[in-house]
Amino acid sequence: MSGRSALESYNEGDGWWNTEISQIKKNEVNIRGYKMEELIGNISYPQMLYLLLCGDVLDEKKAVLFESVLVAGADHGPRAPSIAAGRMAATCGISFNSAVATGINLLGDSHGGATEKGMKLLYETWEESEQKDKNLQEVIGEKLDQMLAYKEKLPGIGHQLHDDDPRVHRLYELAEPMVEEGAIPGVYLQIMEEYRSQLAQKKNRPITMNIDGVAAAIQCEIGLPAEAAKGIFSLSRGMGIAAHAYEEMQTGVLVKGPCPNEEELVKYTGPEARTLTGGEYR
Amino acid sequence: MSGRSALESYNEGDGWWNTEISQIKKNEVNIRGYKMEELIGNISYPQMLYLLLCGDVLDEKKAVLFESVLVAGADHGPRAPSIAAGRMAATCGISFNSAVATGINLLGDSHGGATEKGMKLLYETWEESEQKDKNLQEVIGEKLDQMLAYKEKLPGIGHQLHDDDPRVHRLYELAEPMVEEGAIPGVYLQIMEEYRSQLAQKKNRPITMNIDGVAAAIQCEIGLPAEAAKGIFSLSRGMGIAAHAYEEMQTGVLVKGPCPNEEELVKYTGPEARTLTGGEYR
Amino acid sequence: MSGRSALESYNEGDGWWNTEISQIKKNEVNIRGYKMEELIGNISYPQMLYLLLCGDVLDEKKAVLFESVLVAGADHGPRAPSIAAGRMAATCGISFNSAVATGINLLGDSHGGATEKGMKLLYETWEESEQKDKNLQEVIGEKLDQMLAYKEKLPGIGHQLHDDDPRVHRLYELAEPMVEEGAIPGVYLQIMEEYRSQLAQKKNRPITMNIDGVAAAIQCEIGLPAEAAKGIFSLSRGMGIAAHAYEEMQTGVLVKGPCPNEEELVKYTGPEARTLTGGEYR
Amino acid sequence: MSGRSALESYNEGDGWWNTEISQIKKNEVNIRGYKMEELIGNISYPQMLYLLLCGDVLDEKKAVLFESVLVAGADHGPRAPSIAAGRMAATCGISFNSAVATGINLLGDSHGGATEKGMKLLYETWEESEQKDKNLQEVIGEKLDQMLAYKEKLPGIGHQLHDDDPRVHRLYELAEPMVEEGAIPGVYLQIMEEYRSQLAQKKNRPITMNIDGVAAAIQCEIGLPAEAAKGIFSLSRGMGIAAHAYEEMQTGVLVKGPCPNEEELVKYTGPEARTLTGGEYR
Repeated sequence: MSGRSALESYNEGDGWWNTEISQIKKNEVNIRGYKMEELIGNISYPQMLYLLLCGDVLDEKKAVLFESVLVAGADHGPRAPSIAAGRMAATCGISFNSAVATGINLLGDSHGGATEKGMKLLYETWEESEQKDKNLQEVIGEKLDQMLAYKEKLPGIGHQLHDDDPRVHRLYELAEPMVEEGAIPGVYLQIMEEYRSQLAQKKNRPITMNIDGVAAAIQCEIGLPAEAAKGIFSLSRGMGIAAHAYEEMQTGVLVKGPCPNEEELVKYTGPEARTLTGGEYR
Repeated sequence: MSGRSALESYNEGDGWWNTEISQIKKNEVNIRGYKMEELIGNISYPQMLYLLLCGDVLDEKKAVLFESVLVAGADHGPRAPSIAAGRMAATCGISFNSAVATGINLLGDSHGGATEKGMKLLYETWEESEQKDKNLQEVIGEKLDQMLAYKEKLPGIGHQLHDDDPRVHRLYELAEPMVEEGAIPGVYLQIMEEYRSQLAQKKNRPITMNIDGVAAAIQCEIGLPAEAAKGIFSLSRGMGIAAHAYEEMQTGVLVKGPCPNEEELVKYTGPEARTLTGGEYR
Repeated sequence: MSGRSALESYNEGDGWWNTEISQIKKNEVNIRGYKMEELIGNISYPQMLYLLLCGDVLDEKKAVLFESVLVAGADHGPRAPSIAAGRMAATCGISFNSAVATGINLLGDSHGGATEKGMKLLYETWEESEQKDKNLQEVIGEKLDQMLAYKEKLPGIGHQLHDDDPRVHRLYELAEPMVEEGAIPGVYLQIMEEYRSQLAQKKNRPITMNIDGVAAAIQCEIGLPAEAAKGIFSLSRGMGIAAHAYEEMQTGVLVKGPCPNEEELVKYTGPEARTLTGGEYR
Repeated sequence: MSGRSALESYNEGDGWWNTEISQIKKNEVNIRGYKMEELIGNISYPQMLYLLLCGDVLDEKKAVLFESVLVAGADHGPRAPSIAAGRMAATCGISFNSAVATGINLLGDSHGGATEKGMKLLYETWEESEQKDKNLQEVIGEKLDQMLAYKEKLPGIGHQLHDDDPRVHRLYELAEPMVEEGAIPGVYLQIMEEYRSQLAQKKNRPITMNIDGVAAAIQCEIGLPAEAAKGIFSLSRGMGIAAHAYEEMQTGVLVKGPCPNEEELVKYTGPEARTLTGGEYR
């Protein structure tokens, strides 16, 4: 329906704010058709998130796997820009939720956003293999060559600090028995690992899958839409942002900048001292 | 330590970014002393949030109760400003996480913020009763009279739509057996209900406890700090914001405003047509 | 330098926070080499913005033209999502700057963002005409055909409400004498108008240039970078957001949603009432 | 009208979005009764901001003084949290306006917010002197003693880096001739300086007025409302945030954190390595 204006839809009888998610009436809060009081206590946080986003209740096993991804991405310390921004915000005298929002505002294409790109790549690779009736290794090899030719970054692979990320192994370890018992297809986990291994081979050095990569694979396995990935990561890393902002707020320090005022950290590289010539005067 | 400058602390040997929360090294991510790979799959979302915020792993039963609060507050439909702002943001061509941040930025003192005020009131009421060795009913009666005299709003009580909120009953129902078996003290649940009931009596009409009120009571029962409440609610309502923003984004409508352009919805009430006199010219 | 890591630069001797913009020392604030106390009172708001962004002081005439663009985009009423979000935020109990930031967060690709795209198109069209030694009309015709073939939207042309935007005429009226006296080249104003007129001809109906289009043309005339356009518009529309948020805050209304709770405005279209089957229980 | 619900107002015949600021119709954009095309080119940025906020066109002289305040606060380098947050955001792959919004979100009570508090103090001090028919020095002395007794910070006085802020002198220098010719009353400039001087005397050491203090005095002189101060500063410092974010974006560095990964800058101070006991398992 892309491109259609809100006014057009409204004139054709839609509500201005149509929603399939929730219905609120006096003493009633219904989510996707379920009474809220039935959901409370019976479904978990990841099940609620999935229900809100996708319209169905995820089964318990998949929900635990999804939850493991949310836990795994929760924090990467104060050198992450999202965490640092949340901590600085907490010292500036704004509402605490706004400090959390400040951090989440940074989780864009380059900071956690690789999960969305990874999911798109995984869904696309699988479809291409199905449609062209080619084996996965071949499709992956072709797509990888193309990306390298265009100097595109492979999403979900590589890390500036880690070369063997412990979070990735653990998540694969949790997912594997589920593949064996048929609870999840397993194909997206396989595709992502194949991309990593072919890239390592081409580069002739060890390369780690990163947390965005394994999150992409698992979120494809349980059928989440790629376009929602940045929102999901916002609620995962949001935990770390809230905790770090709270810790900073507790110190009572005000207007905390990014680093101490040392010459080698903050350096002016602009023009020498000069004066207006007079012509610019207002 | 309030008021101390970041520079002072640093000069005394602290790191600029001191944290007790996490330690990140090559191929190591540790949270509060635990290896991340041990946490993944073994602790739940609410346990991870509690661990990050408070430093300890909440026991399974309390964690389920905390999770129920997170689920209960997740959505209240597109008439909530946070949800509407998130949905509008999703039609404006920004990064999806920024749409989520936009909604969370609105969860301030008047929009979910009553939980923080409620928690402070509950902790304070309990302390006062302990210190002055007065019974709770008496302390509550005095504090309520004082609030009414100063025309202060009682946090966590009353709702513009509901007069008997089903979410509140359900959460009390889940908490009560835990009080009976001694898993939580129960005193904060009791205080909040006493405030509600004394207020209803004084006003001589039925008044509901709201979701902020029951969240305050339960979060005190499990020992969360009041100052973190807005951050916690950000992660609860954040689920609804993400889902609604995603739904709106899927419609493909662009630059969606708050309502259709109808005279009785958007009304200009300013001065009649006029012109500059010339003296104001730049 | 794209893709280089901050750590690499630092290891090669750069400051972590290198800047050519400002130098702050005890009792000294210098901007691009000028003492702040010389700038204050001598240069105008648009000159300061240009100096900070581009490194030079814009001459008085160009500065007035730039200022006219900032004034022209300042407000488009509460049906604009940016304005509505700012107003709603002002009723939610957050810091007032955060209400302003909420509105600005919405000024993305689809809400004012056409100026950036327009500037890129104008710079590109001019360069192509220069490099290929083709006349402008021909280059524009080819590029327009290509955009129509790919169903791309022409940035800066068309408006859902206006078909003859009065702000555009006024800005052209102010710019024209400056072209005549050689203060600005005039070529970008000409290109944008040629795009509008060729499109109107192809569509065989009147089409207005919009405020993003004329802003793009003028900002190219004075040499601003396309990539800064969304930041510039943030400071233009930011005036309207601040004023509307302030007006809303003054009413004292709390937690104001987007529209009244009427059936035809807020409509639930999801699944009928249903219950959990039991298998989903946590 | 505080506390009244939006629904009540609407039911009594108000529009849901009532505004005295702007009226938008087909091919018409009117601001406070003026046609936008008359404003463009005839009034300056500070006049437009004042018109939007206060409803009238500020005269040219006062507008220049207001503009000087906007210019003076525009930047304080990358060690300011607002600037650093904007710069980091620009490396995270979000829409550029969202990077600007991130910085503005930090301009709360403790980061520029002293202007609002200062304006309230100045208006209050003047009223008290008028009502009680006491001389200003006396009222100021009493209020200062009271603030010191309650350990309240005097807004607008003192700076962690500067002890003689050059921006303040320059702004006083620009305002003084206007007081002499009766263009502004001068009383608020006088009150703020008296607070500074009495505090310096009591502390027996030199103390500077800061940029928030002089901004408060001038904004009172021209009749701006205190509650709008954080919004106004958002548009002043917003210039610096946009310019720094743009500079950072141009470097092409991705996901830039607050500081290099050095032990003395980022320090873990939490518990030693430990393991789960098993009881916490989900």
